[in-house]
Amino acid sequence: MENKFSNKIIPIKKMADGSALSINVIEVTGALPGPCTYIQSSVHGAEIQGNLVIYHLIDMLNKTPVNGKIILVPNANPYATIQKSGPYTQGRFNPVTGNNYNRNYTDIFSLPENQIKLTNFVSTNPDDQQLPQLFKKFISSTIDSIIEKKKPYGLSDDFFLNITLQKIASEADICLDLHTGPVACEYLYSHTNQKEEVIADFPFEFILDIPEAFAGAMDEAFFINYTHINKLLSSSNRQLLKCSSYTVELGSEEKINTKIAQEFVQKITSFLSKKNHFAEKNECTYKIKKEKKYISLQNFKTYNAPTGGHVEYFVTPGTHVQKDELLAIIYTPSNDKNGFQKIHIKALHDCWVINYQNSSTVHEGMELFQVGEDAELYLSN
Amino acid sequence: MENKFSNKIIPIKKMADGSALSINVIEVTGALPGPCTYIQSSVHGAEIQGNLVIYHLIDMLNKTPVNGKIILVPNANPYATIQKSGPYTQGRFNPVTGNNYNRNYTDIFSLPENQIKLTNFVSTNPDDQQLPQLFKKFISSTIDSIIEKKKPYGLSDDFFLNITLQKIASEADICLDLHTGPVACEYLYSHTNQKEEVIADFPFEFILDIPEAFAGAMDEAFFINYTHINKLLSSSNRQLLKCSSYTVELGSEEKINTKIAQEFVQKITSFLSKKNHFAEKNECTYKIKKEKKYISLQNFKTYNAPTGGHVEYFVTPGTHVQKDELLAIIYTPSNDKNGFQKIHIKALHDCWVINYQNSSTVHEGMELFQVGEDAELYLSN
Amino acid sequence: MENKFSNKIIPIKKMADGSALSINVIEVTGALPGPCTYIQSSVHGAEIQGNLVIYHLIDMLNKTPVNGKIILVPNANPYATIQKSGPYTQGRFNPVTGNNYNRNYTDIFSLPENQIKLTNFVSTNPDDQQLPQLFKKFISSTIDSIIEKKKPYGLSDDFFLNITLQKIASEADICLDLHTGPVACEYLYSHTNQKEEVIADFPFEFILDIPEAFAGAMDEAFFINYTHINKLLSSSNRQLLKCSSYTVELGSEEKINTKIAQEFVQKITSFLSKKNHFAEKNECTYKIKKEKKYISLQNFKTYNAPTGGHVEYFVTPGTHVQKDELLAIIYTPSNDKNGFQKIHIKALHDCWVINYQNSSTVHEGMELFQVGEDAELYLSN
Amino acid sequence: MENKFSNKIIPIKKMADGSALSINVIEVTGALPGPCTYIQSSVHGAEIQGNLVIYHLIDMLNKTPVNGKIILVPNANPYATIQKSGPYTQGRFNPVTGNNYNRNYTDIFSLPENQIKLTNFVSTNPDDQQLPQLFKKFISSTIDSIIEKKKPYGLSDDFFLNITLQKIASEADICLDLHTGPVACEYLYSHTNQKEEVIADFPFEFILDIPEAFAGAMDEAFFINYTHINKLLSSSNRQLLKCSSYTVELGSEEKINTKIAQEFVQKITSFLSKKNHFAEKNECTYKIKKEKKYISLQNFKTYNAPTGGHVEYFVTPGTHVQKDELLAIIYTPSNDKNGFQKIHIKALHDCWVINYQNSSTVHEGMELFQVGEDAELYLSN
Repeated sequence: MENKFSNKIIPIKKMADGSALSINVIEVTGALPGPCTYIQSSVHGAEIQGNLVIYHLIDMLNKTPVNGKIILVPNANPYATIQKSGPYTQGRFNPVTGNNYNRNYTDIFSLPENQIKLTNFVSTNPDDQQLPQLFKKFISSTIDSIIEKKKPYGLSDDFFLNITLQKIASEADICLDLHTGPVACEYLYSHTNQKEEVIADFPFEFILDIPEAFAGAMDEAFFINYTHINKLLSSSNRQLLKCSSYTVELGSEEKINTKIAQEFVQKITSFLSKKNHFAEKNECTYKIKKEKKYISLQNFKTYNAPTGGHVEYFVTPGTHVQKDELLAIIYTPSNDKNGFQKIHIKALHDCWVINYQNSSTVHEGMELFQVGEDAELYLSN
Repeated sequence: MENKFSNKIIPIKKMADGSALSINVIEVTGALPGPCTYIQSSVHGAEIQGNLVIYHLIDMLNKTPVNGKIILVPNANPYATIQKSGPYTQGRFNPVTGNNYNRNYTDIFSLPENQIKLTNFVSTNPDDQQLPQLFKKFISSTIDSIIEKKKPYGLSDDFFLNITLQKIASEADICLDLHTGPVACEYLYSHTNQKEEVIADFPFEFILDIPEAFAGAMDEAFFINYTHINKLLSSSNRQLLKCSSYTVELGSEEKINTKIAQEFVQKITSFLSKKNHFAEKNECTYKIKKEKKYISLQNFKTYNAPTGGHVEYFVTPGTHVQKDELLAIIYTPSNDKNGFQKIHIKALHDCWVINYQNSSTVHEGMELFQVGEDAELYLSN
Repeated sequence: MENKFSNKIIPIKKMADGSALSINVIEVTGALPGPCTYIQSSVHGAEIQGNLVIYHLIDMLNKTPVNGKIILVPNANPYATIQKSGPYTQGRFNPVTGNNYNRNYTDIFSLPENQIKLTNFVSTNPDDQQLPQLFKKFISSTIDSIIEKKKPYGLSDDFFLNITLQKIASEADICLDLHTGPVACEYLYSHTNQKEEVIADFPFEFILDIPEAFAGAMDEAFFINYTHINKLLSSSNRQLLKCSSYTVELGSEEKINTKIAQEFVQKITSFLSKKNHFAEKNECTYKIKKEKKYISLQNFKTYNAPTGGHVEYFVTPGTHVQKDELLAIIYTPSNDKNGFQKIHIKALHDCWVINYQNSSTVHEGMELFQVGEDAELYLSN
Repeated sequence: MENKFSNKIIPIKKMADGSALSINVIEVTGALPGPCTYIQSSVHGAEIQGNLVIYHLIDMLNKTPVNGKIILVPNANPYATIQKSGPYTQGRFNPVTGNNYNRNYTDIFSLPENQIKLTNFVSTNPDDQQLPQLFKKFISSTIDSIIEKKKPYGLSDDFFLNITLQKIASEADICLDLHTGPVACEYLYSHTNQKEEVIADFPFEFILDIPEAFAGAMDEAFFINYTHINKLLSSSNRQLLKCSSYTVELGSEEKINTKIAQEFVQKITSFLSKKNHFAEKNECTYKIKKEKKYISLQNFKTYNAPTGGHVEYFVTPGTHVQKDELLAIIYTPSNDKNGFQKIHIKALHDCWVINYQNSSTVHEGMELFQVGEDAELYLSN
């Protein structure tokens, strides 16, 4: 009853020096049927903790029979991983174009010609039983046709990486895109219709509620396909298709930590257990100890620096602060005998601190903190 | 009958070292009434030819009476101007966030609360004669209210620069945002409803037709206010308001050239003459010698590098090439005794070459060329 | 008996956008005579803890009478402070040239013409009593003559910043250049002839013994003037001149922390007390609790990454490790079913860990650790 | 009588994403004996014209029998080639450390232990006939021993790349390191004892005379080995060894051009012909049309920007200008109604313009021009 492991190397980008960047797609297939889960990490190159999570997940899957299939893509964005300025990794955006690597995915069925194809697909496939598997293949072939059409003029690197990841993920029912914040606690981005599931099944402490809409990110690109088809199915009173899609924030960037990675493996496999990915006797039963905080996107607030200078941060991600509590002091250079002037940054409202900037040197207008206000609290499950 | 010159310094950003970045807003007011034109340059920091154009425009305005007012903001984005990597200026996107400096403008009347305000504004100002001036003030005060609302959490730098420029421009009837391409010929971005005007009055050789819609750029942020109000005015059968808004591409980046700048001054003042900005006797009568090429956005095609290597470009921006003509050769490193393999890039269709990449070293997926296919040709005016 | 405070702003660099970078030189003069100390911070732009140390030192000097004078230059390198790539500060080298900001100082008396001038200066100033003050003025005027000579061709930015700081420091007897490591403990760079002083008087735990020679850094540029003149004085059997010069490493970069800054203020003022900078009754009597570790430069070893990947660091700067202990694991991507291969980095010899890299993503050949082997241990004073 | 071609791939650096950078060493061996020449290009990553020169040299060597061997290393620094900031290539210094890629070579016989080895080598190899070949092998084995010694702590990337290139070159009698300037004409760096050879045999228009000393560059690292041994041979009245070593500047960076590359192939093979690399009947006889200008390093002057702003360059590399001629105008932003102030940069002395900065946006203190004053003129050969 062992899992079967395989992997393939997919070329992503030939560099000017002739070297070739590629991704390693690892598939773990169980002996028994079950769902298919897609997990990628490090699309933002400095957000590397997910790579270690995948490493330890593979370790765990060497010992634990899985139902169905798990597709793993660590280091999903090799170009992002190699960008250095000083010792730091600038892995958030393409150094040539500035494009954020998590905003270039394609809403494939928003293109008029593919809307028509989708309508035809739904009407010509009346069997609700077969529809989920057929739809996955249809997503994949639609992606192929988009790539083919653009190929003669050459594919932009951002487009090609992102659509390639989308294609690999198209086989899955569940998509987990592993990221981190700057200096951050754990949190999930989850669209509003997954609320029940995420509260019940995903043992993360903080959840950000985003609209079920497309703004360029992987989690959205994954679920929006299902949103499109379900709109059509709904209007025909047919059975809707299901998927799960999350951006999973694993703490702070530019660091890896084995102990924390293993905890995240437990949390993720706990969620996958609820999706029947594991035989009952192997089921992970990770219990979150803390109340969940569910925060809607409009209550996820960013504090920007009101002036330039050096920042001392006084609060820890994951903690609660009250209105008027001191979040940070900015020492802004002053042309006088004191050298600096102190600017106090206080909480405008009660909030949970989610993350703060990963440098203490800021210009006016740079992000300082992201916080969640007016969180709904749910008992831990 | 001399013009009156004034200027004011507007602080934009306090840097971490305590230094202050600011913009210099120069106003040139004529003795006689006339339109108001807003011209900014170098929002992309490497695109500096527009700064020299403004310098020579000021020189010309020292000798030539203007009707109405011209507002000039050279070096409109000081932060973009100072970013260096090696000797080159990376001025296209915020080095911290990757945000393209010409994609952060605000569609102010798309916000629900401002839509309501605009509807009220239209209904409470029934005098069509006064409406244009009142609308300009209303844009300005709406911008103020947006800024005020965001201020407590601090304003992100990209938002603040762009909205500040929008506010300064709100007084104008005509907006010219001076940019350049990489290695490029002259061209204009003009929305589809300005077609008649741009063909008749703006002596530039190439025009790209963009939709009358908002995608974050300055020209769009300017005209979209008028699109919003005209929709309301139209539904009340009232007289529509007019504006002109262009992104003006002045050739290649990272270079300045006096002779070319003076030609652009002639071309721009020729356009402004048509807008009655100059007394007839001073009217600039620049004549374009060449046919105009009017290209719709879907025919503005980008060739991306199919592999990495060193590129030799064989065509000049502004020239026409035929299907199958050689555009470039990429010498891609090969692990053999030749060292490199030659990849030929040929034109897929007849086209006008608009620009090419400003480096001969490319990775797979980087932009090589932008070309215009199926241009409509118009006799020069 | 209060100290007198004054400051002056010295322009350093006009930027392409017209903004002006400058440094703020703060002088604190006591009522009673005493030595002169020069302290600068943040010449490497990401090494900001020293700015906070200076801020709290000023605070302390507002309450504590000083003998002599203390010259403070926080944010001594404004250009370095403002360089960002993503949120991180690349403050180590000039982004245009790559020049390390702490390697461009000038060994002013190594220039042949200035060697002659120095010889003349020594022979024409036979009064040993007056010599120290005259020598300081002579350093300053020699620097002026170097600047004047280069001025017609324009001064390179790296040269001008560094020589300007040297000139300000020329008035001092004691020079402290405040830096930090990447992720680091506290340590001092001290030249070999200061050994007795640093062991007895400077309460830092780790000391790196460097040669009394010039390699471009500030501490060297300061003491090498005295090395030059003492060579001449020695050959004439005259009394030698004294100075103290240290590079002071205050922990980790990109962070500030008030508590730690205040401890460093105590350690630095404890050293300055030994130099009779404070009246006895105010004397700081900071006691170091730990044995001092004195490490010669050839025993200060750098571990470089033997391969690329993600690093988990297992030791803390300031701690001792034994031969064969695990320092780090590199997870290097492998094109197989495991995704990564683990590479163990072990200590080659017993050593004290001084610092490690501030990113967990490394390419082959990047620095991982700096350690001190074969430290001489001295009882704390 | 055809040449024999072979190549080998040498791994240089494993990147954090797992991709591997390598260099391609191509050897072209003739049927008849002759000298050995080493040619590398693009150690500075933006200086790519040399890659095209090597490509066309290979093409020529496919048709032309060579005597001896030519070793070619195009794209000699893959890490430098792939660094982008915006579309530009920052290929001059390591983005992590700032180290200039052409300053990290090793003066292998300056190390005390190797000085002793060299003395032994000379005394134990009394046969002057065999000495040249033995010395090449001795250089190579000395390099091996340096690498072996450093290996346990890991090799820094800059050290490893440079020493690897040195080792490959150790087999050669002639070393050509192909570079370019920013915007530049052709010129050579040649040490002072090669003056006769370079004037007689190397058909380049400009030559910069550098001392026969080591400052970290490839040309120096190559010839300094011979300087070391010749010092010992000379003191024993033995026959001296010969080598030729040049840094060859092929015009402007970030560009490639076939026509210019083919001219450089002619110039280089003309030089190699003089070295008996080609059978007489195939000998290239490129004739330089212009007088040679031989400029000593102290007359190679750099003009730095006296202020920040936008620069218009008025002179062309390779041309002569007279004292007081206008070199450039800087438009420096001013906070007044003119927007900019014009600063004129004039020649301080008669000079040849060698290169200028590859951006028109400069900060105070950046390089503007490099010029040669007081050139010795030699009739073309």
